[in-house]
Amino acid sequence: MPDHRLQADGARVLADLNALRGIGTYKTGVHKPTFSEPHLRSLEWLAQRLPDAGLTAEIDGIGNVLGTSAKPGRKLLAGSHLESQNFAGWLDGPLGVIYALEAARVLNPDPGIDGAVEVASWCDEEGHFGSFLGSRSYIGNVSEADIDAARDRSSGRTMRDALRDAGLAGRPRITADAKRHIGYLEAHIEQGQRLESSGLAIGIVTSIVGIWQYRITFTGEQNHAGTTRMDVRKDAGLALARFCVDIDERFPAVSGPRTVWTTGRITLDPGAPSIIPGHAEMLFQMRDDDPAVIARLEDLLQSIAAQVSAQGRCNVAIERIRTGAPALMDAGFQQAIEAASRALAGGRSERMPSGAGHDAQVLATIMPAGMLFVPSIGGISHHWSENTDDADIVTGAQVFVDTCRRLLTA
Amino acid sequence: MPDHRLQADGARVLADLNALRGIGTYKTGVHKPTFSEPHLRSLEWLAQRLPDAGLTAEIDGIGNVLGTSAKPGRKLLAGSHLESQNFAGWLDGPLGVIYALEAARVLNPDPGIDGAVEVASWCDEEGHFGSFLGSRSYIGNVSEADIDAARDRSSGRTMRDALRDAGLAGRPRITADAKRHIGYLEAHIEQGQRLESSGLAIGIVTSIVGIWQYRITFTGEQNHAGTTRMDVRKDAGLALARFCVDIDERFPAVSGPRTVWTTGRITLDPGAPSIIPGHAEMLFQMRDDDPAVIARLEDLLQSIAAQVSAQGRCNVAIERIRTGAPALMDAGFQQAIEAASRALAGGRSERMPSGAGHDAQVLATIMPAGMLFVPSIGGISHHWSENTDDADIVTGAQVFVDTCRRLLTA
Repeated sequence: MPDHRLQADGARVLADLNALRGIGTYKTGVHKPTFSEPHLRSLEWLAQRLPDAGLTAEIDGIGNVLGTSAKPGRKLLAGSHLESQNFAGWLDGPLGVIYALEAARVLNPDPGIDGAVEVASWCDEEGHFGSFLGSRSYIGNVSEADIDAARDRSSGRTMRDALRDAGLAGRPRITADAKRHIGYLEAHIEQGQRLESSGLAIGIVTSIVGIWQYRITFTGEQNHAGTTRMDVRKDAGLALARFCVDIDERFPAVSGPRTVWTTGRITLDPGAPSIIPGHAEMLFQMRDDDPAVIARLEDLLQSIAAQVSAQGRCNVAIERIRTGAPALMDAGFQQAIEAASRALAGGRSERMPSGAGHDAQVLATIMPAGMLFVPSIGGISHHWSENTDDADIVTGAQVFVDTCRRLLTA
Repeated sequence: MPDHRLQADGARVLADLNALRGIGTYKTGVHKPTFSEPHLRSLEWLAQRLPDAGLTAEIDGIGNVLGTSAKPGRKLLAGSHLESQNFAGWLDGPLGVIYALEAARVLNPDPGIDGAVEVASWCDEEGHFGSFLGSRSYIGNVSEADIDAARDRSSGRTMRDALRDAGLAGRPRITADAKRHIGYLEAHIEQGQRLESSGLAIGIVTSIVGIWQYRITFTGEQNHAGTTRMDVRKDAGLALARFCVDIDERFPAVSGPRTVWTTGRITLDPGAPSIIPGHAEMLFQMRDDDPAVIARLEDLLQSIAAQVSAQGRCNVAIERIRTGAPALMDAGFQQAIEAASRALAGGRSERMPSGAGHDAQVLATIMPAGMLFVPSIGGISHHWSENTDDADIVTGAQVFVDTCRRLLTA
């Protein structure tokens, strides 16, 4: 029997999530790029609520929000992020932060719990300025030089300028004390359709796939689009288009059953209608939980590039800009989520890998980590129409709070 | 025998061109987008020099500079433009303006010439905000609503804001008095290699090819790049890449001997590395002097689009955003250029079509028009390394001034 004193308050969780949706609203979702005004306002909103859970709030020099407890006993770290992709959904990030806040509100005041949930909102999980900069800063993996070099992918604004405008320049960055926490727990919407299509309530994450990212540049010859004959052109944009089609045709023979790859951005330079582009660039990403598959695909990518270069019209250069090894979730955390799901979600749970990257993969490098998923309608994410049934949000909160209770009292 | 009193001053022409290169310098070229500070400074520079040629200068409400003469007799309009493509060459535009200024300086004060050269610098020939907005405004083909709708293609800044910041808002726009001029003459670098490779000094333009431009949009489904399986994706960027490759493979069978086509810009939406693009857009352009060829290619474009749409992953929509009928240059103007080339360039001239668009095609719709080309080194244009030998620049100026003399005294 669950202890009803220690249950999540579903109405309070929904009210908090809707309050955050009210900051930077876009259609039914939000537009809160990292260090935008609505993102900063969301951080302040969280910082003001952490004392309700007996936590001391601090926003650090990279925009992480941390709520720390003076209560003796075990400490469990929990959280997610508050910024969004551009014009994206209301739950990707905030769900995990509010679940953590709710767990802290329910468990920290209880004298029967020998310990506390501490709450984190990691900055820039969505990668506007880099790759997991907030959680990586916390584990000591971001240098001042990294911050000097970071720029907003959309606007080009430097991270230094953004931090200064946000009033965060000069603040210390909080880093982890590895012995302080028994581990890290994060909740997230599934961003896929497996839970929904199987009528399940909870996904117990077993591993987080690695993400490998590349900047692929094509160099041809910029020239006039009216006076340069077709047969002498060195059109970097056309070389890029051929490269994308080659990938689409040749990757399936070499990839694994769950491999995915995406060209998310293309830029032609100078990008004017009357100029043959002399340079072109694409951002290309591959994900798999097996590094051997990625190694085979990297070889294929290089061989496609060599073939394009050998044709003599354009040169192709491939630069790896991000390498993410797959991260395993802690077995004890998985068991705790499963037990909580049996108690509060009728056992409607399933173990599954995460195809998306999350801060939990960063925290997993220094402490035990676990993740739970709730269903997402139609599997839509990174789009403003992303959504989850209120009932599933509440069930997820109850399982999350009970998982925290089990981990703190195990 | 040429009249030496009426010859171009080659040193003065080169000095003026270099003075304009000194405004908004980028490497050996310039960066002067329409209504940028260096562009506006170049307009002022010209306005200050027009009185040297007995002309009254005015900068009108769309940024055209016009120098008008009170001298009785025939009036010949001559000019080009002063803004540049982004990070582009020093001669594309200024050459024709300085030749016109030089012709006015040489011919207007001479009592033996019963008439005058009037000088024009047309705004935005390079199409930052639209298509030939300056010269089209002059012939009465741009409405206030057109200006309301115009935006800078790169920055998105509205033309109204740009005109206000330039101090031009509220000024009247000067429009043509069709009976005032015997015609319009424009000089330009060739932007091709034909003159250079044949050792010629002057190209006598016979016609200016038409430019047809299209916005082609692809609509798929935006989704998460990690959690969406390859086989269910509706990737608008990939559909666009396939479309570009299809064009490249299927157009040559249908195009004419001089047809050219170019994809100058590609945008994926939202353009983030971890999101499958749900929308994609390309700017596509075709040029030919035969509208029947263009009609065949438009049919092919539509059939490629229908095939992509029929595959069911993405929808393709083709919107024609610019139609340019080919423009014929006046036979009398061509004869005058040829006679001047015989007198001053040893007859090293050749008749040729222009593959690039020019303001002369706009002026040709209301008055006789002519164009002459000078060689461009390596045929490079719309790039900062664009260049022409000083000797060729001077020869071109001499032929240009003599052509004006012949037209005014014919």
